[in-house]
Amino acid sequence: MVIDVLRASNTIITALNNGAKEIIPVAEIETAWELKKKNPDYLLGGERKSKKIPGFDFGNSPLEYTPEKIKNRGIIFTTSNGSKALKTSEKAKHTFVASLANAKSVSKLLNSLTTDIVILCAGTLGFPSLEDTLAAGKIIAELENLSAYEINDFGLIALSSYQNSKSDLYHTLLKSRNGRRLQELAMVQDIKYCSLIDTCTLIPEYKNNKIINPIENSVNL
Amino acid sequence: MVIDVLRASNTIITALNNGAKEIIPVAEIETAWELKKKNPDYLLGGERKSKKIPGFDFGNSPLEYTPEKIKNRGIIFTTSNGSKALKTSEKAKHTFVASLANAKSVSKLLNSLTTDIVILCAGTLGFPSLEDTLAAGKIIAELENLSAYEINDFGLIALSSYQNSKSDLYHTLLKSRNGRRLQELAMVQDIKYCSLIDTCTLIPEYKNNKIINPIENSVNL
Repeated sequence: MVIDVLRASNTIITALNNGAKEIIPVAEIETAWELKKKNPDYLLGGERKSKKIPGFDFGNSPLEYTPEKIKNRGIIFTTSNGSKALKTSEKAKHTFVASLANAKSVSKLLNSLTTDIVILCAGTLGFPSLEDTLAAGKIIAELENLSAYEINDFGLIALSSYQNSKSDLYHTLLKSRNGRRLQELAMVQDIKYCSLIDTCTLIPEYKNNKIINPIENSVNL
Repeated sequence: MVIDVLRASNTIITALNNGAKEIIPVAEIETAWELKKKNPDYLLGGERKSKKIPGFDFGNSPLEYTPEKIKNRGIIFTTSNGSKALKTSEKAKHTFVASLANAKSVSKLLNSLTTDIVILCAGTLGFPSLEDTLAAGKIIAELENLSAYEINDFGLIALSSYQNSKSDLYHTLLKSRNGRRLQELAMVQDIKYCSLIDTCTLIPEYKNNKIINPIENSVNL
């Protein structure tokens, strides 16, 4: 489970939920342009320092990815932290994209598994981020039969941090490093949107360098 | 502020509070023996894998460091994580040892400073530990005029994790990786002792490779 609450996870979930065909995450802007040349009908999305990349169709605000703009379209996508986290997860049997929005569905999926589970918080430039930790905590909190799991210390920290903050996630996210950054850039609506819980059941899967809606494919765990 | 709740911080605080002259932390067991040769009147304390090192006078249980055994004695001390954390802190103008036991006093000291503050959680073998995070959270929670500080995301995570757990720190610590390890080794009394808050006002200082009680020295911050 890869988490980047502000905002890549929510952008990916929203885009697929609004009918995007697939999302191709890449680490570098140059790679995005090269892919665009080979796939001229694909759209370009992503950010650097939270801002839209010049020449791109979209930034990294989930609110931009509306059905009329992205339905059945492929999206080439590059962000500062999320892409790296996805690459890190490539040794996993399956990699899914999680956020506060789909956390309950994610926990339901995890309940059905008997394998080890890694929740990978993307963080910000190598440091832990509050919002990703809270989403990890919510996923853990929603697990059935919690005492049957052996949870590591950071999982326990995430769980108690979420328990303490769940009554007002929006104002908690405002205090985070990314939250403060997005406020400076007048993107407070993004923080509000990304703080909403259980708004979506879709769990994007990262597979063969693409992120897809696994409902349209048969995922056998 | 260097934190290693289970158990180096508490052992250091307790030893100095019980009258030890000074504690010399070293990374390697071999170095401890070499120092002992040069200072035969010094006592040897420390652990590997939570257990007392063969030939040493003490393990890493704070309960061993009673006044009758250590009053006015120097102690050569080596533990798995705490020594490394102290070495990491050497660029700081001042380095102090903190735990749940002296957290309130630590916050009081921090309130009097205008410098940047780093709270360094020793963790376990490179991973974050629950108990150190909770002590960091308590130090932050006890700061006066909290809104005047710019707290990074891990500080916010620690704060909310502490707020959620403060009503029962003992049972929270039992769930941690180190807590489970100490239970296996029948050292549950150490967990109980280390989970106690505000039992001590002493704040050990690490200076010139020694840990001392700064009250006996004039510390000018």
